[in-house]
Amino acid sequence: MIDLYTFTTPNGYKPSIMLEEIQLPYNIHKIDITKNDQFKPEYIAINPNSKIPAIIDQETGITVFESGAILMYLAEKTGKLLPSDQKGKYQVIEWLMFQMGSVGPMFGQLNHFKKYAPEKIPYAIERYEKETIRLYGVLDKQLSNNEYICGEYSIADIATYPWVAIYEMQGLTLNNHLHLKRWVETLQQRPAVQKGMSIA
Amino acid sequence: MIDLYTFTTPNGYKPSIMLEEIQLPYNIHKIDITKNDQFKPEYIAINPNSKIPAIIDQETGITVFESGAILMYLAEKTGKLLPSDQKGKYQVIEWLMFQMGSVGPMFGQLNHFKKYAPEKIPYAIERYEKETIRLYGVLDKQLSNNEYICGEYSIADIATYPWVAIYEMQGLTLNNHLHLKRWVETLQQRPAVQKGMSIA
Repeated sequence: MIDLYTFTTPNGYKPSIMLEEIQLPYNIHKIDITKNDQFKPEYIAINPNSKIPAIIDQETGITVFESGAILMYLAEKTGKLLPSDQKGKYQVIEWLMFQMGSVGPMFGQLNHFKKYAPEKIPYAIERYEKETIRLYGVLDKQLSNNEYICGEYSIADIATYPWVAIYEMQGLTLNNHLHLKRWVETLQQRPAVQKGMSIA
Repeated sequence: MIDLYTFTTPNGYKPSIMLEEIQLPYNIHKIDITKNDQFKPEYIAINPNSKIPAIIDQETGITVFESGAILMYLAEKTGKLLPSDQKGKYQVIEWLMFQMGSVGPMFGQLNHFKKYAPEKIPYAIERYEKETIRLYGVLDKQLSNNEYICGEYSIADIATYPWVAIYEMQGLTLNNHLHLKRWVETLQQRPAVQKGMSIA
């Protein structure tokens, strides 16, 4: 059994999609970040960075925070969604890191400046909109030659999907990136993605 | 032999420090991002995201981009600086992801708004300064119980060091985070860190 500490955000959906895909049983513990649950001492003991998600694997006693680390842990535990050969494995890991280091943080900054910041700052909105669209282009090009980001469906897709899927909420379109649009629509059809995106 | 494509930035120093630590021979190919070398077709063929660093392992023919993926690849190739037991391994990977997803992107945004943006935007500077100092606090607390981030020296330290080491350039101090300061000073003494930070 996996204890999953999460909330309804793009990073929070990654492990629930993964757990649905690999069919491991899990308990959801909702960490309501709109109520500052992530700063409670009992949660800081699980994740010292006060961010969701985190997991505790009851079978091994291992705690893992950071969505990218959780995806890798669960993939390695079950032998699923991460190739075992070095070339295939590191292709997935590099695209997972690309999601962790660029897609997540930059799309997240766009959310902040477009929707949450108390003042509208055109320079910042334009900076992150431009970078988000550039990143759409990188993914679109990769998907022009591949059904999924690394050929076969993998944790790189699971990490990236919840961030791209919010494009309308971000006031953006995928109509200029039709390979990416096709990929989003394909993933939307997966029962595990639908179930993982409807938690909490 | 490892071909290393890099430049003199915090992300660019991670693989050179690593290669010095593990004593693998490497050739440096300078990708001058101030001259847009990263957008040349021959580099896009190596990293479709046009960012440094990237490596090609001549022995295996494997190309890896994203600094976090490169560190993991080199650690696994040599059996160094990443524990082999699952608990120790995933502790290092979660802190590596923490660096990739928070420390790098947020410290990087602070650099942008404080030093490079054409207009000074107090809201943005304050946002990223506050987050950088919060992240110093997370690291400081972790280092209050550990000599290195995960106990023993690992790729989590190598990933984090070049970003924390620029604190003076960022107009910040470590005097309120003395465990972090002690850790920076310890790493500064390592010959491999000194050599890795003086490339190109």
